[in-house]
Amino acid sequence: MTLLLLSNSTSDAGYLVHAQPAIRDLVAGLPPASAAAFVPFAGVTRDWDAYTALVAAALADTGLDLVPLHRADDPVATIAAAAVIVVGGGNTFRLLHELRRRGLLDPIARRVRAGGRYLGWSAGANLACPTISTTNDMPIVDPEGFSGLGLVGFQINPHYTDAHPPGHRGETRAQRLAEFCTLNPAMPVVGLPEGTGLAVRGATLTLIGPQPARLFVGTAPPRLLAPGPLEMIA
Amino acid sequence: MTLLLLSNSTSDAGYLVHAQPAIRDLVAGLPPASAAAFVPFAGVTRDWDAYTALVAAALADTGLDLVPLHRADDPVATIAAAAVIVVGGGNTFRLLHELRRRGLLDPIARRVRAGGRYLGWSAGANLACPTISTTNDMPIVDPEGFSGLGLVGFQINPHYTDAHPPGHRGETRAQRLAEFCTLNPAMPVVGLPEGTGLAVRGATLTLIGPQPARLFVGTAPPRLLAPGPLEMIA
Repeated sequence: MTLLLLSNSTSDAGYLVHAQPAIRDLVAGLPPASAAAFVPFAGVTRDWDAYTALVAAALADTGLDLVPLHRADDPVATIAAAAVIVVGGGNTFRLLHELRRRGLLDPIARRVRAGGRYLGWSAGANLACPTISTTNDMPIVDPEGFSGLGLVGFQINPHYTDAHPPGHRGETRAQRLAEFCTLNPAMPVVGLPEGTGLAVRGATLTLIGPQPARLFVGTAPPRLLAPGPLEMIA
Repeated sequence: MTLLLLSNSTSDAGYLVHAQPAIRDLVAGLPPASAAAFVPFAGVTRDWDAYTALVAAALADTGLDLVPLHRADDPVATIAAAAVIVVGGGNTFRLLHELRRRGLLDPIARRVRAGGRYLGWSAGANLACPTISTTNDMPIVDPEGFSGLGLVGFQINPHYTDAHPPGHRGETRAQRLAEFCTLNPAMPVVGLPEGTGLAVRGATLTLIGPQPARLFVGTAPPRLLAPGPLEMIA
């Protein structure tokens, strides 16, 4: 499988600008105007047409032909024909809820396992994991099952940060992930700070970006993962 | 119904110290050594026995006899006999998951509707609402349904804050609540900052604490709620 799983979309440079080199690597070798199925369903306060236009502009240099699934007459056929599946961020629960009720989870997983490339950021990175249980998002709708696409064998926590507002008595991110790891001691979790991402190419896993990620497994102290090739985590 | 729903348990003063006057009001008039059923199930990294000891010490001045449900031979009978139901914070998904699989949601709701008093903080405040969809917690386990106890007709967001770590590209709390309100435009949400709580006495609702809360309804701008009596929100 060929995946690019990004922590985030935005930076001071603009939408997806920081990820352009990694996105070019992801789509390298595809014919011009290859079809990319865009999944806008994580958008809640962002209108899906406006979201599609934003992403189409951000991906203009790739030459991909972006087809948003909410406008597709036959979304399953659109997915099956797509060279790339693009899953935008937003609310992970909304994303999973919409894909499940539309019956699109299996078609996407099948397409990626058959060679379709996968680009996801934030909620789109959570979706590629075994479950969405390491999302940071608010559970605004019940997705009726937390299972994700299971394209990788580990969990991702996007927007990973050690920062904590002064005086705040809620849990830190590391505490939240420690809770997950307490209930799921055998499942690795990669905390991806802003600006970082994971590139999957078959059996090769590479951390992309300007700073280390964190690896949480069970009750062991988190390990720093330096940018570059990683041992397959699971 | 008689409820005290607190944003948080800890402060520089110690565990539940900031809430002592409101807790004394909640239990006023109860006979000495009245039974309080303690629900420790939101604890994940915190052992339930240790959690019980912590809360028993914090509530020692009330004279309540704290009975933890994980040690009760007959939890349903313990709930039915309790003068107070005490629901501690931690992870809201774990709390709801454990209560549902043990069949304790309806017994608790029935007891409170029949006159049992309810004290909950953080996850315990989320649980009293129609759903847990405005928790801040990580969805570390699927509770197989997001419905809560429905003791109040509005949602609570505990640990409410406008703070946002610099450089962080994830959603602000207000953005997360705007997403909830977009999908649930008729459901009010009260954002309870640290140190605040809501006291329910029959048809009377009072905001307790040193600072205003926020009321989110639909796409309207959030309203400040000053401490003191509130119009019933729903």
